[in-house]
Amino acid sequence: MAGNLELTLSDRLRKSPYYEATLRSGAKSFTIYNHMLMPVVYEGSDDDYWNLINNVTLWDVAAERQVEITGSDAFRFVEYITPRDLSSLQIGQGKYALITDENGGVVNDPIILRLGESHFWLSIADSDVLLWAKGLACGLGWDVQINEPDVSPLAIQGPNNLPLMVDLFGDWVKDIKYFFFKETELDGIPLIVQRSGWSKQGGFELYLRDGNQGERLWDLVMKAGEKYDIKPGTPNNIERIESGLFSWGNDMDLNTNALELPLDMFCQLDKNAEYLSRDALHKTRSEGVTKKIVGLFVEGEAFDGGCASPWKVSINNKRCGKVTSAAYSPRLKKNIAIATIDRGFNAAGSEVEVDTPWGLRLATVTTIPFK
Amino acid sequence: MAGNLELTLSDRLRKSPYYEATLRSGAKSFTIYNHMLMPVVYEGSDDDYWNLINNVTLWDVAAERQVEITGSDAFRFVEYITPRDLSSLQIGQGKYALITDENGGVVNDPIILRLGESHFWLSIADSDVLLWAKGLACGLGWDVQINEPDVSPLAIQGPNNLPLMVDLFGDWVKDIKYFFFKETELDGIPLIVQRSGWSKQGGFELYLRDGNQGERLWDLVMKAGEKYDIKPGTPNNIERIESGLFSWGNDMDLNTNALELPLDMFCQLDKNAEYLSRDALHKTRSEGVTKKIVGLFVEGEAFDGGCASPWKVSINNKRCGKVTSAAYSPRLKKNIAIATIDRGFNAAGSEVEVDTPWGLRLATVTTIPFK
Repeated sequence: MAGNLELTLSDRLRKSPYYEATLRSGAKSFTIYNHMLMPVVYEGSDDDYWNLINNVTLWDVAAERQVEITGSDAFRFVEYITPRDLSSLQIGQGKYALITDENGGVVNDPIILRLGESHFWLSIADSDVLLWAKGLACGLGWDVQINEPDVSPLAIQGPNNLPLMVDLFGDWVKDIKYFFFKETELDGIPLIVQRSGWSKQGGFELYLRDGNQGERLWDLVMKAGEKYDIKPGTPNNIERIESGLFSWGNDMDLNTNALELPLDMFCQLDKNAEYLSRDALHKTRSEGVTKKIVGLFVEGEAFDGGCASPWKVSINNKRCGKVTSAAYSPRLKKNIAIATIDRGFNAAGSEVEVDTPWGLRLATVTTIPFK
Repeated sequence: MAGNLELTLSDRLRKSPYYEATLRSGAKSFTIYNHMLMPVVYEGSDDDYWNLINNVTLWDVAAERQVEITGSDAFRFVEYITPRDLSSLQIGQGKYALITDENGGVVNDPIILRLGESHFWLSIADSDVLLWAKGLACGLGWDVQINEPDVSPLAIQGPNNLPLMVDLFGDWVKDIKYFFFKETELDGIPLIVQRSGWSKQGGFELYLRDGNQGERLWDLVMKAGEKYDIKPGTPNNIERIESGLFSWGNDMDLNTNALELPLDMFCQLDKNAEYLSRDALHKTRSEGVTKKIVGLFVEGEAFDGGCASPWKVSINNKRCGKVTSAAYSPRLKKNIAIATIDRGFNAAGSEVEVDTPWGLRLATVTTIPFK
């Protein structure tokens, strides 16, 4: 029951370089992400889902803005903002990381790309990391320059991504490992090509480095994709929940402690580099978290939509958490949800009740990713 | 030609405590502001305009989020983030201020409210000032605590605001001076009442301090307003341009130097307190700005809508700026616009050409507010 409303346009809601192309391609409904219009529906959420699962799709994800960090303290600064150990991050490699504040709260969860020894991009979720990073750098007085470059990602996602990418760029793209990237161009359009994307269906992101070439890039990819029956697509809520990808602003935010997420492999609390949240996260580790982000299998009929406001989770009529994302999974043939649940009630196998728009439902706690 | 699109709802796009009440009251179209749904149209932009100009209206402006600053360094910190001299800011008083970064760029333009000796709220426009302020404070290592409290403003705007406010709260509200405020309650609902609001039609903002009481507060005000024929309303684009109120994200942003705005009275560059942008703004003052934000009177037929993407401003076919806000003013009976125009072309009386959606139009530079 996500539902929709009418959105009044305004210059404040920025348009992506692909905006006109997405309208031409049939974009039906949008969200606002990093102050920018982002299409989220073409044929309909279910049809868009199957296009992504079965084939190959092209997404306007220009709203994944980049925060560029340069200067002699750039590497030290990038280590400082995250509990992830970045000491082995190579030039040409990206890593997913949680950006954490002084309390261990999650400011954002970008991919950190290393373009040079002292040159990084944070490819961000929906919060003004630019302001966080600039403020922190100003206060610290370190030698870093931070700005938003003219970069607008376009994603090619779905199982048939590779032949299309080979047609566009050549065989060398096959050798790009997950989250690694190369600087290149397509018909003179400057790009960074990374094996990445906000789905688990495989694919690449093309980071366009000239906002004037958006429509031309879109059209070049769509034309080359015709033989693979490419469809316009978007980050798909059903697929991303199935795949266990968390959404900042939905499943976590500044009030979420990094250790409440099942993302231990991205938090090296004892890393050598100094980082802002060290004391807070060490304290949380020793005391234990008071709530956890977990999966739920929810019983009953298939959900007729998603979760547009948190759903209450309770046990014996006592509130013990909230559902923040939900979908009927066509592949698992189950209702699945991402929830934040209090200590004592969040172990795998625990039973809880969820107050859905379709009535009270029994649910069982499970691990993420869903299996 | 602002136009509109379909917006897909999501938990990430937060709902105000008045959300359901605004739907009941006929909210037709929304924007996203500070990650939150905000209604911007009821009967239609023109009818909404006349309701505001002639009568009294009730606005859900919960999206004006508050950034709360406390701690022993709170006052020093609030002085540090703005070139405005706040030394005379009294407890119970608010002041409009530009928050500026190390380059003098505008991070946001909030009202700063002083609730106690070391207790402030920034009532913000559409950027994550919370992240900016927290980052800066972390870097500086000052003793300040910064968070987003449970506060949701509701605005009563329009010439008939005062009799309604007296009915609700009593005669004492007449004595509140512009931007001053009092802590109070209405039928047990905790509030701060300030004489303020994002229009020049007069009015108050009620800062609700309990998000669970939003619908009750809305209904209490609407009920009391019946005898004044109160209407639901919103910040109105036509009125705010007529009134010379700038909109962060439209008319200015981080790339706008504070001195490019015609807001000298809010910038005391030689104030005693230390502030982050001092060096940058002193440099800009001595070198002069390279562009200015000015008003335009635009010739030809009445605009059939606003400006949803910047319009090119040129002289002799050479680009010299952009229009960032525009409307036909029913009171001035002229097309008016807010524009950023390069040095050499922005003096009052200068003639330029504007590339509007309705063709190329001649325009004359004027001062803001429009007269």
